[in-house]
Amino acid sequence: MDLRPLRPFTWAFALLLFIPVSLVLQVAVGPGVAVFAVTGVAIVPLAWFMGLATEEIGKHAGPGVGGLLNATFGNATELIIALFALANGLSDVVKASLSGSIIGNLLLVLGLSMIAGGLRHKTQSFSREASGTHTTMLLVAVIGLIMPALYVFSAQANGGMNVLILDEMSLGIAAILLAVYVFGLLFSLRTHRDIFNPVSEKEEKPRWSLRVAVLVLVAATIVVAGESELLVGSLEAARTSLGLTNLFLGVVVVAIIGNAAEHGTAVLMAARNKMELSIAVAMTSTTQIALFVAPILVFASLLTASMMTLDFEVFELVSIALATAVLASVVSDGRSNWYEGVLLVMVYALVGVAFYFHP
Amino acid sequence: MDLRPLRPFTWAFALLLFIPVSLVLQVAVGPGVAVFAVTGVAIVPLAWFMGLATEEIGKHAGPGVGGLLNATFGNATELIIALFALANGLSDVVKASLSGSIIGNLLLVLGLSMIAGGLRHKTQSFSREASGTHTTMLLVAVIGLIMPALYVFSAQANGGMNVLILDEMSLGIAAILLAVYVFGLLFSLRTHRDIFNPVSEKEEKPRWSLRVAVLVLVAATIVVAGESELLVGSLEAARTSLGLTNLFLGVVVVAIIGNAAEHGTAVLMAARNKMELSIAVAMTSTTQIALFVAPILVFASLLTASMMTLDFEVFELVSIALATAVLASVVSDGRSNWYEGVLLVMVYALVGVAFYFHP
Amino acid sequence: MDLRPLRPFTWAFALLLFIPVSLVLQVAVGPGVAVFAVTGVAIVPLAWFMGLATEEIGKHAGPGVGGLLNATFGNATELIIALFALANGLSDVVKASLSGSIIGNLLLVLGLSMIAGGLRHKTQSFSREASGTHTTMLLVAVIGLIMPALYVFSAQANGGMNVLILDEMSLGIAAILLAVYVFGLLFSLRTHRDIFNPVSEKEEKPRWSLRVAVLVLVAATIVVAGESELLVGSLEAARTSLGLTNLFLGVVVVAIIGNAAEHGTAVLMAARNKMELSIAVAMTSTTQIALFVAPILVFASLLTASMMTLDFEVFELVSIALATAVLASVVSDGRSNWYEGVLLVMVYALVGVAFYFHP
Repeated sequence: MDLRPLRPFTWAFALLLFIPVSLVLQVAVGPGVAVFAVTGVAIVPLAWFMGLATEEIGKHAGPGVGGLLNATFGNATELIIALFALANGLSDVVKASLSGSIIGNLLLVLGLSMIAGGLRHKTQSFSREASGTHTTMLLVAVIGLIMPALYVFSAQANGGMNVLILDEMSLGIAAILLAVYVFGLLFSLRTHRDIFNPVSEKEEKPRWSLRVAVLVLVAATIVVAGESELLVGSLEAARTSLGLTNLFLGVVVVAIIGNAAEHGTAVLMAARNKMELSIAVAMTSTTQIALFVAPILVFASLLTASMMTLDFEVFELVSIALATAVLASVVSDGRSNWYEGVLLVMVYALVGVAFYFHP
Repeated sequence: MDLRPLRPFTWAFALLLFIPVSLVLQVAVGPGVAVFAVTGVAIVPLAWFMGLATEEIGKHAGPGVGGLLNATFGNATELIIALFALANGLSDVVKASLSGSIIGNLLLVLGLSMIAGGLRHKTQSFSREASGTHTTMLLVAVIGLIMPALYVFSAQANGGMNVLILDEMSLGIAAILLAVYVFGLLFSLRTHRDIFNPVSEKEEKPRWSLRVAVLVLVAATIVVAGESELLVGSLEAARTSLGLTNLFLGVVVVAIIGNAAEHGTAVLMAARNKMELSIAVAMTSTTQIALFVAPILVFASLLTASMMTLDFEVFELVSIALATAVLASVVSDGRSNWYEGVLLVMVYALVGVAFYFHP
Repeated sequence: MDLRPLRPFTWAFALLLFIPVSLVLQVAVGPGVAVFAVTGVAIVPLAWFMGLATEEIGKHAGPGVGGLLNATFGNATELIIALFALANGLSDVVKASLSGSIIGNLLLVLGLSMIAGGLRHKTQSFSREASGTHTTMLLVAVIGLIMPALYVFSAQANGGMNVLILDEMSLGIAAILLAVYVFGLLFSLRTHRDIFNPVSEKEEKPRWSLRVAVLVLVAATIVVAGESELLVGSLEAARTSLGLTNLFLGVVVVAIIGNAAEHGTAVLMAARNKMELSIAVAMTSTTQIALFVAPILVFASLLTASMMTLDFEVFELVSIALATAVLASVVSDGRSNWYEGVLLVMVYALVGVAFYFHP
């Protein structure tokens, strides 16, 4: 097997060393801050390899199927971690990490991308049509999340809340959001591919053979699953030692681990003046989480002891809605500069302050 | 009298048969689901004829007066039904049907129009300036509705609510909204007519004589009034038998009956690639309801036993605000495609789920 | 000293006569409605001279420093009044006057400007990029104000509120907003000056010598400080005699006094078809208040007995957010007409009705 194509990723190979370290720590010390931190780092290169492998398989399979693969496996790491957390009854942490991923992608990743790109280029431009469609999709997701929160608010004010209704409502909303996602795939991969296909992507040739790519994907997925189990198992212990709330842990820590690889890609693309691609990576990842990962988790939670409903904390919900609003305001003209990046990062800081002081 | 120009509307004539049926049922069975359903269907062709007649009179009167007529009689059916409901003390149903009309026009009608048009044409375009003005007008209406809701929320939290203040506030807001509407007519029919006048409308010649048109309008209005009385009279009985809430009944059922004819027109126009006209019909109808029908009903309710205030249910208010936001996001680029239509319909579905489970 | 350049401002000189009148009244009658009204009028010409002097010094110092001076002293009058009010423990009035300034600038000043300009010119255009950046900056400020309000709401629902947390949160948010402002200066005065520099401004030559300008600025500032002390001292008495709430007083009265001079400039510019400048004056003033004056006051309040936190009344907060939304909708196309002005003024009227009836 020819391993040369893997050479440029020595940083990722180096980080893979954290995998055996995590196993040793788990056995020697047991679940705690150490295991949590080390597995967190170990997942980053694995997510990177999963992304690469998916991309390579896509190149072999042609743009249509490739897009579908990216759309389905793009957030596989997060999905795997979330499934383990759900199985452990940690649906609050899962919801917080979903919020954190959305807020982090929209504000931190896009903000840093616009800063990285804007420091070298006065103005960068990108497709208003693609970013506009993504913005509307996110808005639809936000509306889907507002409805159960409103039900809880309204029901609590009027006396008692019916948990069964919240369950059914969440299932109904999850089904609608999933439909939005599926129709969105049809739109972006079929009927209106030209809007979503930045030129540079088309010309690339596969660097790995199909066999290498599939092997890497399968191996990385299995190891990610193992590491996710360790991560989730040590989460509770880590939380208590560090004195953090479930919300802060989910929103900040878990969300960053699950998306670190993509974040790097987006910022790199922006610095290379490929703002179009940078925005595509960050926004596609966000709509995937809101319209695919979240609904899938709702359905998956039916198999666990307690269902994951879609009623988010008011702080999370407001932050997601405001992040969507500020993003819409920033991307509406199809151009970006360093200051728009700063504004996004500052909103992330405001949200961070709020979550830090959250009761 | 030459009836040939009426020939193409055999479907409407067929539906007129529901009028005698409704009378027979009312006498034979009394108010209930049957009368409610049959009068509901009977009103649809009547509304269609009222719309046609108004249009024809407008052609005789010239574009300025024609526009004014359309602006005033465009939602006459709804206004008549609402007045009967107000006289019966059903102000909750009236408010719910206003919300339902607004949400239905913005999400369902425009959504289906964009789907119908988008399935045949890859991208359809329309005037950003006209749709932008309508969006801002709707936003002003939303702000007008938020204020009393905020007062109720704030007053309830601080102890007691003063019903008199809510009445005065509603009158003040209704007066402002009506002023917004009147200035809007001046703007769209006088000073900036070119923005709002899609070309195709200018060339049409009257198909009916002025006499026929006036006769049809008067006759249809009288019959609509009669049917509306039956509809409202059977509403309570129908509601109980079907186990529906006032809110669901108003938002979904009454709103659809009152707007069915316009809905058909908008979708038809879109399919014929006249997206400009389709959007004009749906958005003009919506701003009319929010800025003309609603304030008129507030003033009209002064003549009834209990005033209709402008404090809407939080679910209704949030849905109207979110429908406006998603619409603004969709029309901001002056272009539409089938997926934007799907997104609007999906938001309608989300709102529907929420209203269905509403406590 | 050559005083000819001051001649065109006889109206301002005439109003200066209110200064001795205010002193006489204060001694003869004592604090009350009379002193309040007279000092209110006396501050208007002083603010006008401070603005002129800052502008003239800026012309001598060159565009970079001039911009910085305008950015810092542009709202000096308001800052001075607010500092005196803070020292008197009137932080509620200060917050209300901040809200009032923001709402008034966005809705009343811009609305009247668009009407004044739109009555003479069918459509007026301005830079979408500059107004878009200002809109996003305002949105960031709104997000900063939502967070503490959400904390208060959330904490009150969950039992008890921790005042210390609110203090720390306000300091953190104030620091972030100030950073947004400083980076914004760097952006608008340095890296992207071309976007924010309407052509006409560049060509102007100083009309006053540097000495005259500095003298006028120093003298006017000292007198404004004295008048502000009288104004704040008579505020409580005036409030009681007129039967107004602190909120109404702050939002409507104090906000208008502090901004009267700028309001005049913006409307005048619009009437002369310099919409670009008119929008620049109104929006720059607003972002200054939200991102510079408000945070500075939070830090300054650390020196007084009770800190000024950033949790605004829900009515104020919602009004600021809605004003920002409707403004974003109006300026998004880079064009204005008289009806958009009417819409802004009508939203101001809606907010006014709400504040008038506020419990």
